[in-house]
Amino acid sequence: MSTYPRLLENVIFQLSKLPGVGRRSAERMAFWLLDQDAAEVRHIADDLVQLKAGLRCCRRCNHLSDQELCAVCNDSGRDQKTICVVEDPKDVLAIEKSGAYRGVYHVLLGTISPGDGRGPEQLKVQHLLDRVGQEGTQEVVLATDPDSDGEMTALYLTKQLKPLGVRVSRIGLGIPVGGSLEFADLSTLTMSLNARRTIE
Amino acid sequence: MSTYPRLLENVIFQLSKLPGVGRRSAERMAFWLLDQDAAEVRHIADDLVQLKAGLRCCRRCNHLSDQELCAVCNDSGRDQKTICVVEDPKDVLAIEKSGAYRGVYHVLLGTISPGDGRGPEQLKVQHLLDRVGQEGTQEVVLATDPDSDGEMTALYLTKQLKPLGVRVSRIGLGIPVGGSLEFADLSTLTMSLNARRTIE
Repeated sequence: MSTYPRLLENVIFQLSKLPGVGRRSAERMAFWLLDQDAAEVRHIADDLVQLKAGLRCCRRCNHLSDQELCAVCNDSGRDQKTICVVEDPKDVLAIEKSGAYRGVYHVLLGTISPGDGRGPEQLKVQHLLDRVGQEGTQEVVLATDPDSDGEMTALYLTKQLKPLGVRVSRIGLGIPVGGSLEFADLSTLTMSLNARRTIE
Repeated sequence: MSTYPRLLENVIFQLSKLPGVGRRSAERMAFWLLDQDAAEVRHIADDLVQLKAGLRCCRRCNHLSDQELCAVCNDSGRDQKTICVVEDPKDVLAIEKSGAYRGVYHVLLGTISPGDGRGPEQLKVQHLLDRVGQEGTQEVVLATDPDSDGEMTALYLTKQLKPLGVRVSRIGLGIPVGGSLEFADLSTLTMSLNARRTIE
């Protein structure tokens, strides 16, 4: 029944794939795009393509970066002897927003998850152990999510890290169990970082 | 303070321009895009560019089309002698969704609006008068919005069309179906009372 021209229908279909965008919002967006200059729309499209073409993982910490080293690793003002271990680049961004952490990061790119058949060898665990050996790290802050996979990963990492003689701590107070770091509010995150406890 | 890589920040900035999309939703969308294949993102980007490059106005009725004639004008099953005049291609799509109209359209691409300095010569009015003269039109349904600019446009068109000997009608204005008299505004109520029909 709909007589949307095919090109318009294509764009509405593509936009409605985006998270949180239904058919009706996608229509609004498509009509908004129609009202823009062709150059402006091309600019938006180019930036989308660039995102996938240009972004890569930081060679040192696996965080998202457009250069070989990410902005945090490149920042000489950061405490290079403290490594905060997170699951995902999104978690780095969340912690950075809080401004409560001045060390560097290590992104595992996932968690250990026997249910999904993911073991430590699928993660950047060996990479972390190598870094701790080479960089003279003093403390590793385990900031995986406090859900079952995240806890298991923290436990596994603790066992691997302890023999290297490094202090291992776990973020704690603040983040509700079963919650996700990504969606924590800033003060909860700050509290959680300040209240980190050494694992004996 | 934010350490979003520049390419990611660019995409978030572009997405947050979309209507109804704030910073937080744009971030979610950007991360979703990051998780897609590069080919998928390129596909989305291409469709956006195509929208502006490929869509044009129907030669006959000014509705959006990817061909010289739009889908409605190309449909031989439609009543070619009845023209519904609307302000905008979006209005065509809204009426088509209702399925209640089987004639063809004429899109003015705006309204007369002295406040914004828009007169009839900025609209597709002459084009409409030419069509009525050439196509043997029997009825013109004026479906401009019932606001001040739309009413003024309808009045102007009526004056221009009447001398051509064509029947001119205006869409019914009143209380929406499912609406409530109690909450209708005064001008809608007035309009609704003036537009009352005798029940046979």
